[in-house]
Amino acid sequence: MFEVKIYVHHKASILDPQGEAVLNALHRLSYSQVSSITQGKYFEANIEADSKEAAKEVVESICKDLLVNHNMESFEYELKEVAK
Amino acid sequence: MFEVKIYVHHKASILDPQGEAVLNALHRLSYSQVSSITQGKYFEANIEADSKEAAKEVVESICKDLLVNHNMESFEYELKEVAK
Repeated sequence: MFEVKIYVHHKASILDPQGEAVLNALHRLSYSQVSSITQGKYFEANIEADSKEAAKEVVESICKDLLVNHNMESFEYELKEVAK
Repeated sequence: MFEVKIYVHHKASILDPQGEAVLNALHRLSYSQVSSITQGKYFEANIEADSKEAAKEVVESICKDLLVNHNMESFEYELKEVAK
């Protein structure tokens, strides 16, 4: 069994209205120390696979097919084997 | 300048309808290897502070005041100093 943590965020060139809204709200709450903030999606999943390579393939596929909008978002992930 | 990565996810005891929806969609796409998945929020922020302790305080405050719904969510974060 493998556990994966997937971080999905806007590509640098893409406008991030949610991040802008959060930044404005923080500044209204007087958190001027926060100079920038972006908001994305965070997934934790358990994947059954025979090898780390096989688990990696599943992660890349589910990101390509469902979890990530490739026009606007990019992703990173951390994969580790865990006991069943 | 400090960079923080904040991971916000549902508390274990709380129903995660978004995660359920994603899991069902993955299974309809024949990704039966995915046995569970949860979806949360992921923030990346730059924070100006004089020390790591001061930056930590800002992170804890912005999570308490805005970014995290403490009834349903918990959070972790990674903080590192970066060049200006």
